[in-house]
Amino acid sequence: MKNVAIIGSTGSIGTQTLEIVRVQEDLNIVALAAGSNIELLEKQAREFSPEVVGIWSEENAARLREYLADTDIRVVAGMDGLIEIAELSSSDILVTAIVGMIGIRPTIAAINAGKDIALANKETLVTAGHIIMPLAAEKNVAILPVDSEHSAIFQSLQGNVHGDVEKILLTASGGPFRGKDTAFLENVQVEDALKHPNWSMGRKITIDSATMVNKGLEVIEAKWLFDVKPENIQVVVQPQSIIHSMVEYRDGAVIAQLGTPDMKLPIQYALCYPERRYMAGDRLDFWTMNSILLEKPDMDTFKGLKYAYSAIADGGSMPTVFNAANECAVAKFLDRKIRFLDIYRIIEECMASHTVIENPDVSQILDTERWVYDFVESRW
Amino acid sequence: MKNVAIIGSTGSIGTQTLEIVRVQEDLNIVALAAGSNIELLEKQAREFSPEVVGIWSEENAARLREYLADTDIRVVAGMDGLIEIAELSSSDILVTAIVGMIGIRPTIAAINAGKDIALANKETLVTAGHIIMPLAAEKNVAILPVDSEHSAIFQSLQGNVHGDVEKILLTASGGPFRGKDTAFLENVQVEDALKHPNWSMGRKITIDSATMVNKGLEVIEAKWLFDVKPENIQVVVQPQSIIHSMVEYRDGAVIAQLGTPDMKLPIQYALCYPERRYMAGDRLDFWTMNSILLEKPDMDTFKGLKYAYSAIADGGSMPTVFNAANECAVAKFLDRKIRFLDIYRIIEECMASHTVIENPDVSQILDTERWVYDFVESRW
Repeated sequence: MKNVAIIGSTGSIGTQTLEIVRVQEDLNIVALAAGSNIELLEKQAREFSPEVVGIWSEENAARLREYLADTDIRVVAGMDGLIEIAELSSSDILVTAIVGMIGIRPTIAAINAGKDIALANKETLVTAGHIIMPLAAEKNVAILPVDSEHSAIFQSLQGNVHGDVEKILLTASGGPFRGKDTAFLENVQVEDALKHPNWSMGRKITIDSATMVNKGLEVIEAKWLFDVKPENIQVVVQPQSIIHSMVEYRDGAVIAQLGTPDMKLPIQYALCYPERRYMAGDRLDFWTMNSILLEKPDMDTFKGLKYAYSAIADGGSMPTVFNAANECAVAKFLDRKIRFLDIYRIIEECMASHTVIENPDVSQILDTERWVYDFVESRW
Repeated sequence: MKNVAIIGSTGSIGTQTLEIVRVQEDLNIVALAAGSNIELLEKQAREFSPEVVGIWSEENAARLREYLADTDIRVVAGMDGLIEIAELSSSDILVTAIVGMIGIRPTIAAINAGKDIALANKETLVTAGHIIMPLAAEKNVAILPVDSEHSAIFQSLQGNVHGDVEKILLTASGGPFRGKDTAFLENVQVEDALKHPNWSMGRKITIDSATMVNKGLEVIEAKWLFDVKPENIQVVVQPQSIIHSMVEYRDGAVIAQLGTPDMKLPIQYALCYPERRYMAGDRLDFWTMNSILLEKPDMDTFKGLKYAYSAIADGGSMPTVFNAANECAVAKFLDRKIRFLDIYRIIEECMASHTVIENPDVSQILDTERWVYDFVESRW
């Protein structure tokens, strides 16, 4: 039996993780945490009977305690609650399905407690990869990627050794505006940006896919997860999302993972690793597929990727600025307070206005995030 | 240091194997054998200083002994010579780069002597897979595929377990006549059939690629190498030979190996397995590739594949008949004695006229081959 704790259980990755747990009988939920969706969290708690559930606000926690008064499920709140769940003695693995830098402290707590991490919270590695990866190595904890692309890379690395990797080929769908120019992007609306061609995902990540900021965050994440230099991470647009990513080795061989666009595959692979389990669902049909399309990304129009490479090159706290500026900007775009291309303008201005802190600790990372939030609020 | 013996050293795979040995300093040639190219074999012997070289005819062996009189290289001949080379006490691995069923006895001898096999001689597995694979398991000997497709499958299986494989996706270029119909094939000439779109290979295998008999032989080979049912081997036409083959797992994930069409990669992978070594040469460029094309094979026009599945279904000695009939037919086609489509007619008639021997031993396999040769000679 593998005991699983999930932070972010009511989101897209969280609910799909629970779908896996429903099917795989040797997975058992010991803890669930959510931001604010108290109704769904109560339902999940009743179905999966964890030891403890966490919700962000004390107010919601109080309500949830009433709702669950007929059970012996403990309810915790806030960052202390998240950390308590991350460190829970009964859990074997923590699924970090939470969105944003809020995941950093719980992830560090879980690693310190010796828990494996099924990592879907990319901000943790983007902003604190230099802390997380050495700590995981020290504690002999596995960081198992849940992102589709990083899982594909991880799968393509199996049976090979790190020194033989020449290049990581990170695929990107190109998002809903692939092939469009800057003039077109000037006028796109929230509804347009939320129409992802292949993947069904949360709202924030769908916008990030349209700006290619998501791919930029994934480049930074890949750098930390797989210990490769940014110049050895090449983004390839594969509009159908059939190839989920690839690894090129020093003998010239390329190993790729392909599949239908279903996040349950990488989630299950991370939870059951190194086993593969049967999974119901569509299979790729190579007889009717016709072709797998490939393109060079247009980094001049979709600047998300360019800013990411620039942020890695600057290093230190700059990836945090890139990520936090984007978070603010996307929130404003979703609230219809700024236009699509303003997302790039905000990121660019934040990065230009920031003085890099080398090798920042968690406080400095979170201070940097707050600085960005304040800076953005003061300007837009 | 890994000591390598090669049977078939003057052919396409043999000479490319020697190119690898030239570069990889821990590979050392201890034996070479060729069919009749005495000049090239002498040159190879002088360059690589093996203990022993073998040539098929006693007459050529006598000449070669004169040529090499100033060296201490021993010269052997015939099947006894091949077997002596296969069993050579100093060798670690035998590369079976020989073409045809002549490879069966040396391969068995090498396995019995505990040598790993880098297998390029597909006829061995096609006709005697039921003998070779259990023997290799018993002797704890690795059968390392050198064929590009089988190497791709082997690479795509690394880090996974056999029970998780759902399907093998064997790719095929479709050969020079892909998309053509039977009326067109009626009139094709030897020169047309020898123009392979992607791969530079020997003459016989190039014709086999045009008829898709080669892919049929590979399906049978894959069945033995990877212990999969024929109905779980799906041939996919990939005209550019970028995807070299794939494996679909029971969670729906597909792992693929891609590369430029260069046989040196699978040869080196087999010789250095499980290591990957740097290899000079072109890399795939996914930014300029545009698309990877995929098609369903046309088994009604290119019947080689259909006959292969039928031969596996019949089992026993039938794959030997399929292979031997094709060998005779291709030789006659290359000699301009029959037309292209007569290759199919010969295979079909031989298979229809054969009474299957269940679980044939080596003598029965070779008797079946002779029966086919005589049958073909008596009819065409």
